[in-house]
Amino acid sequence: MTSPGGAVPVAQTVITVRTPELDSFGHVNHAVFLNYLEHARFLALEEAGFAWSSLDEEGWQIFVVRIEVDYLAEANRGQELLIRTWAESFRRTTMVLGQEIVRADDPNRVVTRACVTAVWIGPGGRPMRVPEHVRVGLSSGTRKG
Amino acid sequence: MTSPGGAVPVAQTVITVRTPELDSFGHVNHAVFLNYLEHARFLALEEAGFAWSSLDEEGWQIFVVRIEVDYLAEANRGQELLIRTWAESFRRTTMVLGQEIVRADDPNRVVTRACVTAVWIGPGGRPMRVPEHVRVGLSSGTRKG
Amino acid sequence: MTSPGGAVPVAQTVITVRTPELDSFGHVNHAVFLNYLEHARFLALEEAGFAWSSLDEEGWQIFVVRIEVDYLAEANRGQELLIRTWAESFRRTTMVLGQEIVRADDPNRVVTRACVTAVWIGPGGRPMRVPEHVRVGLSSGTRKG
Amino acid sequence: MTSPGGAVPVAQTVITVRTPELDSFGHVNHAVFLNYLEHARFLALEEAGFAWSSLDEEGWQIFVVRIEVDYLAEANRGQELLIRTWAESFRRTTMVLGQEIVRADDPNRVVTRACVTAVWIGPGGRPMRVPEHVRVGLSSGTRKG
Repeated sequence: MTSPGGAVPVAQTVITVRTPELDSFGHVNHAVFLNYLEHARFLALEEAGFAWSSLDEEGWQIFVVRIEVDYLAEANRGQELLIRTWAESFRRTTMVLGQEIVRADDPNRVVTRACVTAVWIGPGGRPMRVPEHVRVGLSSGTRKG
Repeated sequence: MTSPGGAVPVAQTVITVRTPELDSFGHVNHAVFLNYLEHARFLALEEAGFAWSSLDEEGWQIFVVRIEVDYLAEANRGQELLIRTWAESFRRTTMVLGQEIVRADDPNRVVTRACVTAVWIGPGGRPMRVPEHVRVGLSSGTRKG
Repeated sequence: MTSPGGAVPVAQTVITVRTPELDSFGHVNHAVFLNYLEHARFLALEEAGFAWSSLDEEGWQIFVVRIEVDYLAEANRGQELLIRTWAESFRRTTMVLGQEIVRADDPNRVVTRACVTAVWIGPGGRPMRVPEHVRVGLSSGTRKG
Repeated sequence: MTSPGGAVPVAQTVITVRTPELDSFGHVNHAVFLNYLEHARFLALEEAGFAWSSLDEEGWQIFVVRIEVDYLAEANRGQELLIRTWAESFRRTTMVLGQEIVRADDPNRVVTRACVTAVWIGPGGRPMRVPEHVRVGLSSGTRKG
């Protein structure tokens, strides 16, 4: 399975909409999708061989510096959603990840598309080179669901 | 499997901790557990035969009027948690549900225990009798996981 | 005071960062800014003459269909932030709002810039014309803080 | 002004309900009040002379171990709420704080009452004595709003 751009997703994550994530319009609030996407990105990093413990051990931080999100369909109470995450591109200290949320019961129905730029911050609080094993792991992709 | 009080859980729900649910202490923020518990209560209602669509169709609302929560252990990044929900007692317009969150990989390690009182509100905005099929469904319990 | 593009903000809203909005990196999570921005947009609509009660009375809904957010600086525990909201452009059924979050104690320090596209939905669930008084109100701008 | 139990509030905090805090019933979700209360508790600690930087500098943590909350009235879009926080009691490593949320425009209308028990955790991850200056500061109370 490939992303719209042809990249192989490094991770596919299934989440279930939780009732308190609905807003006063009765659907998932647009801000909540950013939580889903962040959750999926961390699982993609793990899938790519990144150990969360590195954040504490090395004093690394990963900061989001830009997001673009298109909301194409509503998500509702109790729905299962599938999130695909893949690498779009890398610069020295930043990575751009593509993400897509589809309905788990009908993966052709796209709910949300996102492009997220994140910068890696080193122990001194300054941008650091994206770790090589992360770059390689995210670039290769896997089919593990 | 029975709850501490001997009741049979009407529902058992598994959730995964999501990264943005951690607070500045690096563990799941205490308020986030209320989202987990609400999610599990709605699934318990469904398991008990309650259709969510009734809320819109009948103009019903269910308001939490009291919670008591004991936090016994931390929950951390990526953990799977199992939530058990059961009926404690009913009065005419209110129901008291017991809930327990344990670690999915070690169900003897209790993370959180909760007691939640909710009142049913009818179309006119006034408390209504708890629907009989909900009372029966929640009281009987099931073993479905 | 004008926005980067020269438009006059229709609303300026001050919010205070709340402790549970910090994430495991100890700063405001990037998703939380979307809550700040939504809050400010609704106040901007009100400032522009829109009554929230119209949503219920008319059966209108306002759905976000696209966001772009640049995160330029961290926000931390207890900080006061000033949010400026202005109209960027309109199409028949959509409006594009520009928003900027700056530090209240130093308005030259921009924390976040955002561009939000929202569609107006009518009682039948289909896009509707942006109400004329909203268009006029948002376009004129005010200096009321 | 005194709390229901006669204690003098150590802090009074005003917050404004933000639109994304409403749930599908159109009022503030019950879990969101815990965020308001946590925010107010940290301001109360500060008011009592506690420096937030101590958390990082000393490696201290403050964990909520029990909450009891009664929800007495709804809170709605845009409302201003006043939160009073006071010390109920102390044990060696825990403190019990009382809190009350009222409508800012009518302080006799109580929205929520809460009792929150928190334990202080030292650098080794074990409970520590509540710092003496915190105990004194919280016990004395102030009238500063």
